[in-house]
Order: sequence, then C-alpha cells, then structure tokens
Amino acid sequence: MPKHPDHAAHVPAETKEALTKRLRRIEGQVRGLQKMVDEERYCADVLVQIASVQEALRGVGRILLQNHLTHCTTDAIRSGDPAEAERVIEELVLLWGKH
Amino acid sequence: MPKHPDHAAHVPAETKEALTKRLRRIEGQVRGLQKMVDEERYCADVLVQIASVQEALRGVGRILLQNHLTHCTTDAIRSGDPAEAERVIEELVLLWGKH
Amino acid sequence: MPKHPDHAAHVPAETKEALTKRLRRIEGQVRGLQKMVDEERYCADVLVQIASVQEALRGVGRILLQNHLTHCTTDAIRSGDPAEAERVIEELVLLWGKH
Amino acid sequence: MPKHPDHAAHVPAETKEALTKRLRRIEGQVRGLQKMVDEERYCADVLVQIASVQEALRGVGRILLQNHLTHCTTDAIRSGDPAEAERVIEELVLLWGKH
Repeated sequence: MPKHPDHAAHVPAETKEALTKRLRRIEGQVRGLQKMVDEERYCADVLVQIASVQEALRGVGRILLQNHLTHCTTDAIRSGDPAEAERVIEELVLLWGKH
Repeated sequence: MPKHPDHAAHVPAETKEALTKRLRRIEGQVRGLQKMVDEERYCADVLVQIASVQEALRGVGRILLQNHLTHCTTDAIRSGDPAEAERVIEELVLLWGKH
Repeated sequence: MPKHPDHAAHVPAETKEALTKRLRRIEGQVRGLQKMVDEERYCADVLVQIASVQEALRGVGRILLQNHLTHCTTDAIRSGDPAEAERVIEELVLLWGKH
Repeated sequence: MPKHPDHAAHVPAETKEALTKRLRRIEGQVRGLQKMVDEERYCADVLVQIASVQEALRGVGRILLQNHLTHCTTDAIRSGDPAEAERVIEELVLLWGKH
C-alpha cells in the first residue's frame, strides 16, 4: 500500500517564493480584519474584506495545485504503480470542491 | 442619497470577542501555512489546510452576517427611509455568493 | 412561535417571468449535459458546462434573494414581532454560504 | 501543439449510467423549481432547493473528474508528450475552483 508522502516531489524556488509572498500578504490582511473588528467597522465592509482574503487563498491554492499536478501527480502516474496513481487521484477528487 | 456608514450599528461585546478570537486563530493558521510551504510539505496536505482556513473564514463571515442582519440591516429597514433600506438590500445581494 | 410561511410575501410579475425564463434555460442546459454524457464528450468540456449551469443557478438565487429581502424579510422586520424577525434572520444566516 | 480532444478517453458503462441517472434527477429538480416559482412558494424554501441542485451538480462533477483523472489525464501524462501533459494540467487548474 503506497505511503502518504511527507514532502512535495519538487517545489521550484520561484514557486516557493511566490507562495511565501502571497501568504505573508494574507497574514497582513487577516491582521487588518482584526483591526476592523476592533474598530467596529461597518459589517458589510468587513465581509467584503473577508471575501478578498478568500480569493487570495484560492490564488495560493491554484499555484499549489499547479505544482502538485506538475510534480507530485505526474511522478505518481509515471511511477507505474497503479495503487500510487489511484491514491493521488482519489486525493484530488477529495480536494476538489473543498475550495 | 443615504451615506454608506463607517461603523457597525452595534457590536455586542461577546460578538467582538468571538470574532477577535477566531481571527487570531486564523492568523496562526496562515503562519502555519507559511511554515508548511517553507518546509516543502506535501502539496495535498497544504491544500487541505487552506480549505480549513477557508472554512474558518466562512465561520467569521456567518457571525458578521448575523450581526449585520440583526443590527445594521434591521435599523436600516426600520428607519422608514426606503432609499436606505434599498441600499442595505443591494449590498446584501452583492455580498451573497462571494463567500 | 412564528409559523414558517408557505408562500412568498410578494413576487412581482416581471420577477416571476425572469425566474421562469432562466429556469427553463437551465433545464435545457441540464438536458444538454445528458447528451454530452451520452456522446462521451471530453470530460473537461462537460465540467466547463457544469460550471456554467452552477453560475446560472447562482443568478436565479440572486434574484430570489433580492425578492426575499425586499418583500419577505422587510415585512418580517417591519411586523414588529421580534420572534418573526429573528426567524427570518436565522434563515438567512443558514442559507448564506450554501450557494 | 496538442489538439483539444472531442471525446473522453474512456467512460465505463457504469459511470455513464450513474451520470445519466443523476442528471435526469437534476432535470426533475429543475422542473420542480419552476413549479415552486409558479406557485410563488416561500423564497427561502426555493433557495434551499437551489442549494440542493447545486450540491447534486457537484456530485456529477466529482464523478466526471474521477473519470477524467483516471482515464484522460493519466493517458495524457503517460503519452510521454510534455506539451500534451501540460495542456491537461493547465485545463485542470482552470477548472479548479469553478465548481
């Protein structure tokens, strides 16, 4: 039975940098949300900001998925091990629609 | 023409505290995501964590919406000013489905 | 305890017509999906079509929400019955994020 | 440059049957929505029904994705043609989050 991997098959340096930069910006946005709540800002404006953080997270998810498909999934499918290919596909179907 | 408000009509102390606590936890989760990316953790695991942050943000959104409907929207509709009620309803329709 | 209503407080004739027209088009799209499946069309193309039906359903949802807020919700909030207002708000929070 | 395929690489008979059955049920649900609108049923109840159709469509999408990954994607990645593999991965990233 194929083992669930701990690490990505490969993460190019520029992908890692792009992800880190985006996640730092998202961390700042979440701190901004705390400030808005603290200042009792208009709820609809806070809700718009939340939607913007969610969109930013979807962007991070798309980059990760691209990397996952290009490296991890491709490796699993090319490995020639059908159980490993099946594991990766099952995983993608479960992830689908969670975002 | 009704002015877009700067502040919430009312935010009960326990709502504010609940929102702040949840947003702090979300900030920690986003820092956790940065660590996972830095350690080149398996992409599918990072994607599951992103889905969990998205769900936590939806939770914050639901609390804010509840407050918005109970206080800001109710005030606007009771104000007797049809333009103000219309503004608030238009705003809700735009927010709908963004989350 | 306020009764859950069976009918909308009010649906203007043009809203009803717009909803019916959109739902008929969606019914046609769903039949189109059956044809695509029957002809074993490329899965990614079928998935794009499904996304388009989902977007069309969100459009119907937005019109219904607008009507719900303008008529049903407004009536409930103006009724002066706090239990009725609370019921409608609870309902909106539950609906939120389901679409 | 790899050609966009017209047909699925393979659709097992039981997958086709499952998809057809689900889509027929969805068609019936959409007709039910038309009836609800015609009878001016309570908007919140119609919105709950719309959410249920959307969930049913997501179910169809998951089956299609599973088939797409198991057959079309796997074939493309195994074809040894990097442009073809890239085309399929690009397609999946675009589809991601549309549902």
